[in-house]
Amino acid sequence: MKDIQNTFDNRGIGIDKVGIKNIRYPITVLDRKNDIQHTIASINMYVDLPKQFKGTHMSRFIEILNEHRGNINIKDFPKILENMQKRFNANSAHLEIEFPYFIEKKSPVTHSRSLMEYNCKFIGIKNGAGADFILVVSVPVLTLCPCSKEISRYGAHNQRSFVTVHLRFKGLVWIEEVVDIVEASSSAELFSLLKRPDEKYITEHAYNNPMFVEDVVREVAKKLKRNKKIVSFSVEAENLESIHNHNVYAYVEYDRGIK
Amino acid sequence: MKDIQNTFDNRGIGIDKVGIKNIRYPITVLDRKNDIQHTIASINMYVDLPKQFKGTHMSRFIEILNEHRGNINIKDFPKILENMQKRFNANSAHLEIEFPYFIEKKSPVTHSRSLMEYNCKFIGIKNGAGADFILVVSVPVLTLCPCSKEISRYGAHNQRSFVTVHLRFKGLVWIEEVVDIVEASSSAELFSLLKRPDEKYITEHAYNNPMFVEDVVREVAKKLKRNKKIVSFSVEAENLESIHNHNVYAYVEYDRGIK
Amino acid sequence: MKDIQNTFDNRGIGIDKVGIKNIRYPITVLDRKNDIQHTIASINMYVDLPKQFKGTHMSRFIEILNEHRGNINIKDFPKILENMQKRFNANSAHLEIEFPYFIEKKSPVTHSRSLMEYNCKFIGIKNGAGADFILVVSVPVLTLCPCSKEISRYGAHNQRSFVTVHLRFKGLVWIEEVVDIVEASSSAELFSLLKRPDEKYITEHAYNNPMFVEDVVREVAKKLKRNKKIVSFSVEAENLESIHNHNVYAYVEYDRGIK
Amino acid sequence: MKDIQNTFDNRGIGIDKVGIKNIRYPITVLDRKNDIQHTIASINMYVDLPKQFKGTHMSRFIEILNEHRGNINIKDFPKILENMQKRFNANSAHLEIEFPYFIEKKSPVTHSRSLMEYNCKFIGIKNGAGADFILVVSVPVLTLCPCSKEISRYGAHNQRSFVTVHLRFKGLVWIEEVVDIVEASSSAELFSLLKRPDEKYITEHAYNNPMFVEDVVREVAKKLKRNKKIVSFSVEAENLESIHNHNVYAYVEYDRGIK
Repeated sequence: MKDIQNTFDNRGIGIDKVGIKNIRYPITVLDRKNDIQHTIASINMYVDLPKQFKGTHMSRFIEILNEHRGNINIKDFPKILENMQKRFNANSAHLEIEFPYFIEKKSPVTHSRSLMEYNCKFIGIKNGAGADFILVVSVPVLTLCPCSKEISRYGAHNQRSFVTVHLRFKGLVWIEEVVDIVEASSSAELFSLLKRPDEKYITEHAYNNPMFVEDVVREVAKKLKRNKKIVSFSVEAENLESIHNHNVYAYVEYDRGIK
Repeated sequence: MKDIQNTFDNRGIGIDKVGIKNIRYPITVLDRKNDIQHTIASINMYVDLPKQFKGTHMSRFIEILNEHRGNINIKDFPKILENMQKRFNANSAHLEIEFPYFIEKKSPVTHSRSLMEYNCKFIGIKNGAGADFILVVSVPVLTLCPCSKEISRYGAHNQRSFVTVHLRFKGLVWIEEVVDIVEASSSAELFSLLKRPDEKYITEHAYNNPMFVEDVVREVAKKLKRNKKIVSFSVEAENLESIHNHNVYAYVEYDRGIK
Repeated sequence: MKDIQNTFDNRGIGIDKVGIKNIRYPITVLDRKNDIQHTIASINMYVDLPKQFKGTHMSRFIEILNEHRGNINIKDFPKILENMQKRFNANSAHLEIEFPYFIEKKSPVTHSRSLMEYNCKFIGIKNGAGADFILVVSVPVLTLCPCSKEISRYGAHNQRSFVTVHLRFKGLVWIEEVVDIVEASSSAELFSLLKRPDEKYITEHAYNNPMFVEDVVREVAKKLKRNKKIVSFSVEAENLESIHNHNVYAYVEYDRGIK
Repeated sequence: MKDIQNTFDNRGIGIDKVGIKNIRYPITVLDRKNDIQHTIASINMYVDLPKQFKGTHMSRFIEILNEHRGNINIKDFPKILENMQKRFNANSAHLEIEFPYFIEKKSPVTHSRSLMEYNCKFIGIKNGAGADFILVVSVPVLTLCPCSKEISRYGAHNQRSFVTVHLRFKGLVWIEEVVDIVEASSSAELFSLLKRPDEKYITEHAYNNPMFVEDVVREVAKKLKRNKKIVSFSVEAENLESIHNHNVYAYVEYDRGIK
């Protein structure tokens, strides 16, 4: 059976990334409290393709995925990326894994337990011998508008906001650490389960901590800068404004400049 | 060239709906103030297929669309549906047209003008000689939680909410009429452009008009019931809760029982 | 602390459905081969609200979810729905759970193993003493156009299609049974991992089994009708047409007329 | 009324981008054939915020939008961006406008006319005196798998694919030019309306022009390189594989290295 992918391509154009996109797959990830957590990921896998080859053998991506099934986590990323380089005889390898991650939280007053969902992503890139890893964590929070509070006799508009952090680091940074930093940098953190005394607490706490989208990204940035494990980061915040049908947005990035 | 769609099917199963889905198309719709409005629609078109025929001639849906291009509005729906019945020799015809609709609004204090977007849908069904038409309007509003206000010393959580109304009526009901009813049944209406005096007004107005998702659907229902042109309706409201990462929802329906 | 939800409402409008929407939650579901399967669900929970009450206690939905965590499957649905009725003192209860479900499949020639994802939904409704349960399974398949094959000297356009089945039944119907029926009613079934001999097989098999969207819904309907456990069903198929940028669609429903 | 946005911020963190996101707005764009075209855009607008200021005056973005309403097109981008810089006293300004664009096409044999939709985006950035403009055009096409054709006795799997081009250029490049290049670099171009002789033509044409996702990006790249107006570009292609439930993807970028 002819291997048409392996034939010579004479257009002289190398391909930067080629592979599979948006395959859904059950995985387990490391969980600071419970050791591991089962979740469902959306996965992208790419390699580069030198200019002389017509095509990539796409089925190999799935074979690699199957081999590492059950062990797709931060620690195994370098191994999976090397496996990709070797199997495809490729210079570079990209692996992106996006998944919902759940943390059990206790409400602030009644200590009622419930699960909160955080959307996370691992991005790993290997380029020759060089490796890069980015952790992405998205945290929903409440923001209460400082301007609205200041100018109004009572009340203040507030809304659900999404704060997304991209991180490069040395050593290990837990998803839970990033969640803690972001939730402490908002008008109030969210919970799935709030009884009335909790709701009273959150409402008053938010009113006492008004924050613009600009304040949120600055507070998160300030705290991330203090963490010496973190090499570079970006923070973005997006408010689903309750007084508008459009969103407001802020973005800040930082690089410690070390390697 | 063989017409395989026209061949006999011996499975004895008639098809309730067959056609095209999610085709995007520029249309003009009636605008109470400006006569017409240009917008972009997502369109579904279906007919029934008797059990003896193998397939439908899908290209005819596009031909019908092309013929009515520029005149796809409430008034022309019966004509388009009849055209579908005739062209396909079908008993029933369905036409669904979803589009963003824009209304220029003035902010409450500074009277600054800006456009607000409302998602709308026309659903037309013709079954033999019988015809049915449903107008769907979705209106984003602000809701402020009565419980949060009541139990807290200051502040109250509030959020963007989406209220969606389905209507059957006699005569003509303007999209603008439905928008007015829903906006008057919320804690506050939304605007694209608010200057500081407007924001103060909206914030205080919302604090003075706390509404659960249950209140919103009841208020809208109460007002729709009073309008004798309206034969039947449903109202649903969904709050993007600012204290949770999930939504709350209420739904109510009503039928005047006349034909 | 005042319970404002519990206060009297004088508008005289009962609410058909009120509750929480789109909460994401890790669950385990029954798996024909492996006993259980971990997955992530999107959940809606509603009850009715009599006209005399102002509001619903939304936090109770989460409490119920937490109590049944780890046992949210077809068998436990009646228990969860009764729990909802009791806890809210409600006449009706709705529970909708949507989740990706994975089945390990072997490719047709090389028998390479890989996981396929199927989107599923359980819908349970309890109305007084009456109960209703609907299983929804969505299966991606390949369809090859009979008209394109017939009129062309070589080749035929084909595409990814989504077939969605809604089922009411007596006894137990496995997700796997529905998947088998739909995959046997398409031009070819899909796999995550295909080696070249498998790809040759699928390509030729699809060319030998051309099917319109109309054929797919009829074939599925024919097979479901033969299964006496199935009381009523609907089947819809949607082709992501490779020759168009819009989709084609067919829908058929059937009710055996028994209770 | 206090202008809290204008107060001093002592955290010492400048913000890279702050503004509004996902506001929908009716606009007109230049059309090579019909002069102008009405469409509906999703718009993002950002400026930078120096470290000494607490917040941005978000309403000014909407005021700028309103001033340029009806004239939001490639030619006016520099003016709008300068307006943003001036009004916010900002160093940098970003404007992103995404919209569906329609082109009337004639089918290849029967010359039936119909509209095809292409998703487009204008991205404009002004940084001090330096300006940057990127045109993004996404084109749906058909791709037929060369491997499947080669190894199978008859047939070949094919599918809808999306090819997205990002372009920087000197002078003017029409959306229509980019569409032409991409459609000529696929197994076959798509149409909304195809009669049977057209469908036969497309089917056979695609079978005679098998292309991997790798071939598509290389062909587009080859043609864009020849166009000296184009300074730099990226091309990505994503196939909705008909034999899998996941997609395959290729990406290539190029920079002529001139300013």
